[in-house]
Amino acid sequence: MTDNRWKTAITEIRKGEIRVRGYDIVEMMERLSFSDAVFLILKGELPNKEESEMMRAILVSGIDHGATPPSVLSARNVLSGGNSLNAAIAAGVLTIGDIHGGAIERCAKILQSWGRRPDEVSSIAKELVSDFIYRRRRIPGFGHRLHETDPRTLKLFQMAKDLNFSGRHLELAQAIESELSNALGKKLPVNVDGAIAAVISDMGFDWRLGKGFFIVSRVAGLMAHAYEEMVREKPMRKLGDWNFDYDGPRKREIPRNRR
Amino acid sequence: MTDNRWKTAITEIRKGEIRVRGYDIVEMMERLSFSDAVFLILKGELPNKEESEMMRAILVSGIDHGATPPSVLSARNVLSGGNSLNAAIAAGVLTIGDIHGGAIERCAKILQSWGRRPDEVSSIAKELVSDFIYRRRRIPGFGHRLHETDPRTLKLFQMAKDLNFSGRHLELAQAIESELSNALGKKLPVNVDGAIAAVISDMGFDWRLGKGFFIVSRVAGLMAHAYEEMVREKPMRKLGDWNFDYDGPRKREIPRNRR
Amino acid sequence: MTDNRWKTAITEIRKGEIRVRGYDIVEMMERLSFSDAVFLILKGELPNKEESEMMRAILVSGIDHGATPPSVLSARNVLSGGNSLNAAIAAGVLTIGDIHGGAIERCAKILQSWGRRPDEVSSIAKELVSDFIYRRRRIPGFGHRLHETDPRTLKLFQMAKDLNFSGRHLELAQAIESELSNALGKKLPVNVDGAIAAVISDMGFDWRLGKGFFIVSRVAGLMAHAYEEMVREKPMRKLGDWNFDYDGPRKREIPRNRR
Amino acid sequence: MTDNRWKTAITEIRKGEIRVRGYDIVEMMERLSFSDAVFLILKGELPNKEESEMMRAILVSGIDHGATPPSVLSARNVLSGGNSLNAAIAAGVLTIGDIHGGAIERCAKILQSWGRRPDEVSSIAKELVSDFIYRRRRIPGFGHRLHETDPRTLKLFQMAKDLNFSGRHLELAQAIESELSNALGKKLPVNVDGAIAAVISDMGFDWRLGKGFFIVSRVAGLMAHAYEEMVREKPMRKLGDWNFDYDGPRKREIPRNRR
Repeated sequence: MTDNRWKTAITEIRKGEIRVRGYDIVEMMERLSFSDAVFLILKGELPNKEESEMMRAILVSGIDHGATPPSVLSARNVLSGGNSLNAAIAAGVLTIGDIHGGAIERCAKILQSWGRRPDEVSSIAKELVSDFIYRRRRIPGFGHRLHETDPRTLKLFQMAKDLNFSGRHLELAQAIESELSNALGKKLPVNVDGAIAAVISDMGFDWRLGKGFFIVSRVAGLMAHAYEEMVREKPMRKLGDWNFDYDGPRKREIPRNRR
Repeated sequence: MTDNRWKTAITEIRKGEIRVRGYDIVEMMERLSFSDAVFLILKGELPNKEESEMMRAILVSGIDHGATPPSVLSARNVLSGGNSLNAAIAAGVLTIGDIHGGAIERCAKILQSWGRRPDEVSSIAKELVSDFIYRRRRIPGFGHRLHETDPRTLKLFQMAKDLNFSGRHLELAQAIESELSNALGKKLPVNVDGAIAAVISDMGFDWRLGKGFFIVSRVAGLMAHAYEEMVREKPMRKLGDWNFDYDGPRKREIPRNRR
Repeated sequence: MTDNRWKTAITEIRKGEIRVRGYDIVEMMERLSFSDAVFLILKGELPNKEESEMMRAILVSGIDHGATPPSVLSARNVLSGGNSLNAAIAAGVLTIGDIHGGAIERCAKILQSWGRRPDEVSSIAKELVSDFIYRRRRIPGFGHRLHETDPRTLKLFQMAKDLNFSGRHLELAQAIESELSNALGKKLPVNVDGAIAAVISDMGFDWRLGKGFFIVSRVAGLMAHAYEEMVREKPMRKLGDWNFDYDGPRKREIPRNRR
Repeated sequence: MTDNRWKTAITEIRKGEIRVRGYDIVEMMERLSFSDAVFLILKGELPNKEESEMMRAILVSGIDHGATPPSVLSARNVLSGGNSLNAAIAAGVLTIGDIHGGAIERCAKILQSWGRRPDEVSSIAKELVSDFIYRRRRIPGFGHRLHETDPRTLKLFQMAKDLNFSGRHLELAQAIESELSNALGKKLPVNVDGAIAAVISDMGFDWRLGKGFFIVSRVAGLMAHAYEEMVREKPMRKLGDWNFDYDGPRKREIPRNRR
């Protein structure tokens, strides 16, 4: 039975009292922004003023990116099949995997593991870039298929500068960007995933939480899309009903001697 | 092919520009709190000052309720089975159904449909309560298994009062509470689900979004629990391994004449 | 703690022994087909010869329907976002809701509730059809968007006839079909959902299991599609990247007096 | 638009015709068992007589293992929260991750990669076991927490022997078992995951499908559990409501200077 005894350091429940990381929920409701509460529950401590601003901007930045991301497709598709709002949002969250949204996680992992080296940021960046080029691997968090320069990235970096919020991981990300430009002769700018990866790393978050910040932010967008599907579209719409090619075996028969 | 053409009124994407409900994402990152951005994406318009405060408090209030809710169990269980953070959070969201978290939706539906009647709130409440008692149904959003008076509810009502934020649905909820007390001779106070239902109804949100506000809020808590499971517990822990009774058929044999 | 004590009548586990509904798993592995085992675990009893044949045919009939159903889209989409095989299959199963695949459930519910009346099948069908026409509702399980006559339906009915497997629900389904033809002046044949609904009702299964038979069958198809996506397609393919129209508010600015 | 054009080699749909891997669905309904249909859709070809028997036994063997596996907990928990049958089954499938059920996949990967070496099975096993012992890693598919000798494993091996169904991977699995016994001085028998991994490898299935066979089999059990929860238990039962210890920060206050 001891196996079943849970331990948790997140929230303490008593009769008439709810404390998150030690803080009373009522006091939190009075005085914390929701993004500060998110920071607190994940980090265990309240953000300072600069962290608070950056966390707010990160959560706002990821709230939606139109109707095309795979997670929106899943959410609308599940709702359209005759399921509830929570099932639709769950399907959207399920879609945010190692590829879609996963760059934050993978970029933060790289920044945190290489950033731990005792060298200067510029020399780490040089070695990192040549290592990735040698192994013919893309560095997650750099380059974007649509926006040459992602407006969210510029804003995050500008805010970080204005707030004097900057640490080793942000510097490393920018050093990688200029190193990539030197090595490839073209710009592969830090994208929004890379910028978020750098900022949360400087806030001391484990890279394994990377995808999570994106999820917390995007859930509101997924909810808006599921609701729009619910009120504007007919059920079971033909999301997948475009022409498709069958290229498998031609008609054949089950051999006579079976059964 | 026309079937496949999507329409959306949520977010407009252009090269280098992202606009949510018409507002530039960069401007939003500068000037909106995350809870205001959530309000905007769901409602289509920015909240006024009072709505902003209430929305913030609602989202903070639901961020976590300890390790026992079914959604936490699912999230930890899925992570423990060897799955990724997004799969664990998705399982948690999936669990937030018509029962768990669904009271917001069902209560808001009742408040919105009964509230539409052209009568005074007190007489609507009287009729509503006697109707539910007659049909031996519980009114969702009233009563709580653990907290006699939920601290979050008191706070929400107090904030609404301090902000002069109150409308027909909040009044109706309170009228139902006193009517229930008269009719049953015991207190069945508005609980946090009922309070949120009333507030979002007064903000003009469709009851079908009810569960969604809870989800947006709780996703951060689910993420914290999934991460805690990841870093503190052994994989595949025996969440379900308590004693259980088998009460089905006893040992028997497949009849000889089969196969 | 008593709350946590599970009861189950499905499978008994002892050291070195596993018994499903009382039958030893080893004996089942020796002598039962998989579709018989599915019947057993759901019904609690082994099927007779006719039920065994019909259950086999039902499970085979639903194994796949090409790449266009919403469940396939979800499964491929989730895999494409960088998730595991089980997450992809789960997303597919999640999509099989009240609309997609739900007709089995809703049709079986109608057949079982109307079939309970003590009248003759033909007069029940007459009343049922006029009731649905009066309420301008479609009867689930009749008509098909693609196949004028679904080959699977014909086969199921023919098998039922050849095996002398037929009961009140199958007869009712056929009576509804001819009544619909009379009333509407055009053919709205029983489709595969309706045929399965009738057959499982005659086997004594609760209508609430309806969607489940489809799920058990289709999971193999979903797995084949997820695997095909894994080995044949690039990750994060643009399933949702067709043109779409934004029809929400035009560019506007956050009022100066905020924040 | 070309991006959206799907290709599939699984099922061809024409008006009134459905062909799975080239075989007409009607012919399949007449003459194939469900486990043969599963084999066909995954492999692209019909099984021979021995493969057919082994596949049947594998699918029957995994149909259920009582109420304790994490996947059952998730399925019941999601249903209990007020969700539909498909959502409950989806949550169960989602739980079958790299740990729970994942041993089939990981064991098949090992058997297939080591089995490709041009050496004799016994010398491969020797090297493999010493490699794992040296790296202090467990070999997935060997040992079981409950059954000292899993009855399903014995049966699968006996059937394989009786049918003269045996190939390099089954031999390798048995060689590993005896090598482990030599090296560790205690029995760590092939468990059911390991046995299935060996058999599907000898059938030529890609190890990445490993978890999938378990899922196809277990979905019927998950459906039985979700249905049992639906008809036997009260909604929102307290699956997770055992005592738990909070070991996070003690009560503290939000510093005065915030907000």
